[in-house]
Amino acid sequence: MLADSGSAGERLLDPARDHQLLPVTDAGRRWVAIAESALPAIAERAREHDAAGTFPHESIRELQANGFLAGQVPESLGGLGATSVHDWVVAMTRLARADAAVAISANMHLLGTWRQVRIWDDARARGDHARLERLEGYLRAVGEGRLISCGTTTEPGTSLVEPRTALTRNGDGWILNGRKGFGTMSPAADVIFVTARMPGDDGGALLATVVVPTTSPGVTVLENWDALGMRASGSNDVEFADVEVPADSVVPSGPYGELTPHFLTVFGPGVLGLVGAFAGIAEAARGQVSELLRTRRRGPSGALLATRRQIQHEFGQLEVGLAACRAVVARAGSLLDDYFTRVPESAATQQELLSMMRDVQCAKQFVTREAVTVVDRALTLSGGAGYAAKSPLSRMYRDVRAGSFMQPFSPLEGFEYVGGVGLGVDMRTSGQ
Amino acid sequence: MLADSGSAGERLLDPARDHQLLPVTDAGRRWVAIAESALPAIAERAREHDAAGTFPHESIRELQANGFLAGQVPESLGGLGATSVHDWVVAMTRLARADAAVAISANMHLLGTWRQVRIWDDARARGDHARLERLEGYLRAVGEGRLISCGTTTEPGTSLVEPRTALTRNGDGWILNGRKGFGTMSPAADVIFVTARMPGDDGGALLATVVVPTTSPGVTVLENWDALGMRASGSNDVEFADVEVPADSVVPSGPYGELTPHFLTVFGPGVLGLVGAFAGIAEAARGQVSELLRTRRRGPSGALLATRRQIQHEFGQLEVGLAACRAVVARAGSLLDDYFTRVPESAATQQELLSMMRDVQCAKQFVTREAVTVVDRALTLSGGAGYAAKSPLSRMYRDVRAGSFMQPFSPLEGFEYVGGVGLGVDMRTSGQ
Amino acid sequence: MLADSGSAGERLLDPARDHQLLPVTDAGRRWVAIAESALPAIAERAREHDAAGTFPHESIRELQANGFLAGQVPESLGGLGATSVHDWVVAMTRLARADAAVAISANMHLLGTWRQVRIWDDARARGDHARLERLEGYLRAVGEGRLISCGTTTEPGTSLVEPRTALTRNGDGWILNGRKGFGTMSPAADVIFVTARMPGDDGGALLATVVVPTTSPGVTVLENWDALGMRASGSNDVEFADVEVPADSVVPSGPYGELTPHFLTVFGPGVLGLVGAFAGIAEAARGQVSELLRTRRRGPSGALLATRRQIQHEFGQLEVGLAACRAVVARAGSLLDDYFTRVPESAATQQELLSMMRDVQCAKQFVTREAVTVVDRALTLSGGAGYAAKSPLSRMYRDVRAGSFMQPFSPLEGFEYVGGVGLGVDMRTSGQ
Amino acid sequence: MLADSGSAGERLLDPARDHQLLPVTDAGRRWVAIAESALPAIAERAREHDAAGTFPHESIRELQANGFLAGQVPESLGGLGATSVHDWVVAMTRLARADAAVAISANMHLLGTWRQVRIWDDARARGDHARLERLEGYLRAVGEGRLISCGTTTEPGTSLVEPRTALTRNGDGWILNGRKGFGTMSPAADVIFVTARMPGDDGGALLATVVVPTTSPGVTVLENWDALGMRASGSNDVEFADVEVPADSVVPSGPYGELTPHFLTVFGPGVLGLVGAFAGIAEAARGQVSELLRTRRRGPSGALLATRRQIQHEFGQLEVGLAACRAVVARAGSLLDDYFTRVPESAATQQELLSMMRDVQCAKQFVTREAVTVVDRALTLSGGAGYAAKSPLSRMYRDVRAGSFMQPFSPLEGFEYVGGVGLGVDMRTSGQ
Repeated sequence: MLADSGSAGERLLDPARDHQLLPVTDAGRRWVAIAESALPAIAERAREHDAAGTFPHESIRELQANGFLAGQVPESLGGLGATSVHDWVVAMTRLARADAAVAISANMHLLGTWRQVRIWDDARARGDHARLERLEGYLRAVGEGRLISCGTTTEPGTSLVEPRTALTRNGDGWILNGRKGFGTMSPAADVIFVTARMPGDDGGALLATVVVPTTSPGVTVLENWDALGMRASGSNDVEFADVEVPADSVVPSGPYGELTPHFLTVFGPGVLGLVGAFAGIAEAARGQVSELLRTRRRGPSGALLATRRQIQHEFGQLEVGLAACRAVVARAGSLLDDYFTRVPESAATQQELLSMMRDVQCAKQFVTREAVTVVDRALTLSGGAGYAAKSPLSRMYRDVRAGSFMQPFSPLEGFEYVGGVGLGVDMRTSGQ
Repeated sequence: MLADSGSAGERLLDPARDHQLLPVTDAGRRWVAIAESALPAIAERAREHDAAGTFPHESIRELQANGFLAGQVPESLGGLGATSVHDWVVAMTRLARADAAVAISANMHLLGTWRQVRIWDDARARGDHARLERLEGYLRAVGEGRLISCGTTTEPGTSLVEPRTALTRNGDGWILNGRKGFGTMSPAADVIFVTARMPGDDGGALLATVVVPTTSPGVTVLENWDALGMRASGSNDVEFADVEVPADSVVPSGPYGELTPHFLTVFGPGVLGLVGAFAGIAEAARGQVSELLRTRRRGPSGALLATRRQIQHEFGQLEVGLAACRAVVARAGSLLDDYFTRVPESAATQQELLSMMRDVQCAKQFVTREAVTVVDRALTLSGGAGYAAKSPLSRMYRDVRAGSFMQPFSPLEGFEYVGGVGLGVDMRTSGQ
Repeated sequence: MLADSGSAGERLLDPARDHQLLPVTDAGRRWVAIAESALPAIAERAREHDAAGTFPHESIRELQANGFLAGQVPESLGGLGATSVHDWVVAMTRLARADAAVAISANMHLLGTWRQVRIWDDARARGDHARLERLEGYLRAVGEGRLISCGTTTEPGTSLVEPRTALTRNGDGWILNGRKGFGTMSPAADVIFVTARMPGDDGGALLATVVVPTTSPGVTVLENWDALGMRASGSNDVEFADVEVPADSVVPSGPYGELTPHFLTVFGPGVLGLVGAFAGIAEAARGQVSELLRTRRRGPSGALLATRRQIQHEFGQLEVGLAACRAVVARAGSLLDDYFTRVPESAATQQELLSMMRDVQCAKQFVTREAVTVVDRALTLSGGAGYAAKSPLSRMYRDVRAGSFMQPFSPLEGFEYVGGVGLGVDMRTSGQ
Repeated sequence: MLADSGSAGERLLDPARDHQLLPVTDAGRRWVAIAESALPAIAERAREHDAAGTFPHESIRELQANGFLAGQVPESLGGLGATSVHDWVVAMTRLARADAAVAISANMHLLGTWRQVRIWDDARARGDHARLERLEGYLRAVGEGRLISCGTTTEPGTSLVEPRTALTRNGDGWILNGRKGFGTMSPAADVIFVTARMPGDDGGALLATVVVPTTSPGVTVLENWDALGMRASGSNDVEFADVEVPADSVVPSGPYGELTPHFLTVFGPGVLGLVGAFAGIAEAARGQVSELLRTRRRGPSGALLATRRQIQHEFGQLEVGLAACRAVVARAGSLLDDYFTRVPESAATQQELLSMMRDVQCAKQFVTREAVTVVDRALTLSGGAGYAAKSPLSRMYRDVRAGSFMQPFSPLEGFEYVGGVGLGVDMRTSGQ
């Protein structure tokens, strides 16, 4: 029973239970707590980096120093062992509330790390000591905060699974040439994962992943990222000009032009992490406008905006959209955890992984669109206030629109992919 | 790895993992399995009852006979002890796939039953033996398949919490007069829960719930339900003319005009069950059109519809919408389970329950709209075929539109309620 | 200045200027007036024919008797000379307010008539007396109320420009075999225009139009139309079994599989007339719900629904949608009038006509979707009332959904067509 | 007939007829032609002013020098006599294609000018020579390119019809104090129209319009406009500190708190001009992305983007939206022309003007939302390209979002206004 039985109106209650997403594993809880501890400092820098388009090196260093970027690494190698995709998504919502560009930058590092952990897990289960050893070097470096990675896949005028960036033989090793765009996190990365075309043994072409230190001769991270939003993500072009690559840095992943199992295993969880970031932007926009509506008065009546019916109606639509974003991304995270826990790396089939990617794309298509709507409603509710350059809402409005461009499918292709898989059509070459 | 590495096209794979909702408790699993066993027979009768607008007595009797309607009753009293709201929602999705009118009818019985079980649970915990005994008589009757209940709340021209149906004193007992609409399940009900105005001790008015056997003199269930959809739900008007009611059949629930704790505890889980039914319609529409797209060919090329890009695009949008409906209703179910498990009946506050109802309304507003869109997309994808009267899709199109009218909030008021609670406004009188 | 300066509230003013569409030619004004005079009687029969699925023969006979069906025929041949496509659209909005099934039935007759008038006009301008004479017989029969036509184009499993219905040679004449669906107006038609495949002189195939009296041996109009909505439109299947057709009843219109100039000239204005009917349904739904909101009171306050803010908000969205439907269909009508007035039949190019059809499809895609939304909002605003089977709103909800299925493009293909033409792509075979 | 009968595909035809809006009066045609002649130079400066947030003085001076800003002034006073609201809207679409900020700046001058012309017209008809003379001085100054005006109405925390900016008596004249926001065009204005509260003779308060030269002591145009979009519109705050105002510069327009006839006559056509600007942004976005789709190729197939089905589908949706924007704004313009031509200033009633404003708000609510969607689709179709800061699409995405904030109704209030007027409710105080 309420203490005060006055009629509805001016007196505001404690805000309703907010039902933010919560991690479901113990390691995840520790990981998310680390992220949360860094938020105030990250948030404080966000506006300035957005305005100038500069990369938030301090924020990334902080996430490295406090162990966040090592969260997925096994405890034995210096990390937290937080391998739940669901909890990864939760962590991304938190970071994005402070600075979405930091969140997607961190995610770029996390997707490579998660992949290595999964392979390491499999190698351990299979007793593949050679592989274990190689992976442990990498993971220990991440675990000890000595290594940040990023990935570059996109090239203009071609699809993700048909890169023009190519490997040519060079004795026992290879030479890499090409140019990639959208190299998020590249200003801070020690190592870049690069997709490339490589010649197969039978004369055909393969899709490969190449691991290249950013300090290798011939690698140039341009400083040319200048966009509508996500201005602090450092999503520069990266050039590879006659870069020498040793043989063991090249992993062929399957036929050129196909969504290979390796590709799907990287971009499934990886994209879902990104989706979490966009849900986090929506949460932040809700927070901003809710604060405003609970404190601003208008008109001679001086009534709080929160007590106006049309405000409640619009805010209610915002809440419904946000609740849906959370539910959708959380359920997708749980479905991926179910799958990856049940099926080890070496047993996963391409068809299963195409289906797993369907779940990810469902979440992506839904959340990246609905999050735009949520931010848009927040802007509407703010009156003109949110349209000011200095309002965080105007940054969110620009940032959130990046969501639908997240690879590997364009917003239009994403629906086709989801629909095709749902209808049982073989979509393995649909990334073209 | 796929057995056949041919290019995408005609050859359809096994349909992708469908990810339907699954119960999370053991009792719920048994309960849902009972529902599923009855689906084929229920589905077979659906078209005829829809066309004629007749009540599916056989289907309801079957659900009574096989123990489904007793699922929530404690095992000690003849039921399954399935009290999870999440699993209740899952059961509703299943029934609605076969016949949505049967699902919402069953739900009308379940919401009263769940409420009695919760009070029984609390009485047991508090050692209130008098109450326990009274409740056990009721629950045992349900558990043994001897009692079906329904509830009537709506009246034209007034709000749910301001009924004109009224109790007047009659010695130690009461006389009930009034007329209610939308008495879903009334043709099969043995007992009706009726909301009414009653005089309070202090001269003010109270909102009360009255339990009335349908065989009481003065109770008339009209046979006047004739609507666009849900034609088999028996949602008739029910008249109460000078009905004598004993004192212990009247439960005052709080101030007239307020969303009282009792009211919220009935209509929170109860409405979420209904929402599950609408998600189930969306699932059924997906199933119908998917089957059609996977088998129909068109044009001189004779290509399967499933392999056309624009079909995949639209079906992908349908899938995204359905995935969102499932995620949203499942998360709401889990949130309610968390709450009701943690907080017993006697400790629940009105503010918490208003917040719980917010979660329900978020799900209702989202799912009842998105399910309409899903069915609409299925109709589009069917070409003219789904527009034929004999197509199950045309029935679903009519049935699914009922969702937004489900009480206690109209579609417009629902958003205001969600928004108001989210902004911390006291919405206890917002049901007016 | 208003007579009464009381505050906003209960006192309703005269309804705002409604801005319905008005004819722009004198002949059109006379034509629309004739339509309007018949509306009350047509409206009165609508509910019964909808319930029973029977064809409204009386209504169609009335439109024939009062000269409406002859409106487009030149005055010299007994008609009104109302050839404006814009005014045709306006007439359709009026009829559809009373009974949308009558409107689309009448439209089926009008599209063939308009086509004949255009050819007659061209023959006259070119002094082609042989042709003139033949056409005058036909048009005079329409002008004198002795001839009703309909057209059948659709066949399951193939596209509109690739009919399986075929002509085979039979001496100087032809034999027609095939089966068509969606033969709207067929129960009242004296003559049917049928699309068919015919052998070309060079061995290739042509798309042809065949004019067949319904009394010809071998023609069977089935009575099998039974659909979700438009239940009184008589859109039956029509069978053609070894129907003998004289040579001069067959008009080759161009390459089989192409949107030929003849096809485009029939289906451009013809579809726009249909679109007008759907705008008319939206108008009728607005009228229904507006009446209800201006007279119903609710709750203890007894306030008129019209004075509630959330009602005004939703009704405002309905109004905006309706205003847009009207503006869109009117502008498309004017664009077609501009074109057809400027360019005579014999000078029209296929590319121009493809572009004209783009304008029609823009209007169709917009209006058939927005009209669904308008009716949906009206249903929402009605509370449960509009969901009753006896409410005209529930009929409108079923009728209006037929709009997007109107040929020659499916709802999905329609956007591709519009987009392709807009981008300068050659879409002449896009009807496949 | 097409020259080349090859199948659809690579070969692009001439773009389809674009159907841009065209002026309907001779004076309007001359006026729009003047606007068009200035577009290339204006467009060239747009990006730089947007980036720096500077006011495009050169562009405004050009529009003054070439006579555009005098277009509405009677020919006898140096203008073109272009008084059609429809043609004003058309002119705004043209300017906005080059620079939307220039368009809305020019519009701010035009709305005051149009108002003065209408009053002048009325004075002439009524033979009110005193008034004529005063107005002719003003209009001649505009006609000769010596005077630019702007208007300021908005204040934070109150409604448009309840300004806190106030007049207090000062001998025969007045003293003005207050602060206004969103003073679009203020950096170039010679004169500002200011809404203010003034004491009425009966002790009540009136809403008044005050004409203040920007050079008056106490007037300060701040340089503080810094927003998400429309960055070159100079929409600064303007302060009035003890500004002395002569008696004849103050025009009482009616009761404080009401949408007075004067207010409605200014903001009806004035807002519709703004709406035209947002339709123009949508046109420009279509042009940008159409060019890209007609020239870019993708993937190993190297197919033009324009020939891809999913591209055509999305572009088709864009086209439908744009066609609707054009139709809606054009019809509203024609309705206003009909009204203002038929009813002179001195005969117009408040109820009629509230209804006229309803037509304007219908167009505003539709176009400002649909234009956002059109630009959003263009961004989607551009792939990542449009998200680059240097792409005009990213500027349009920011600019177009300003539309719904255009006064006098917020996006939420706008629907209520439209709905209330449509239902016959007296909405004269709804601007509060």
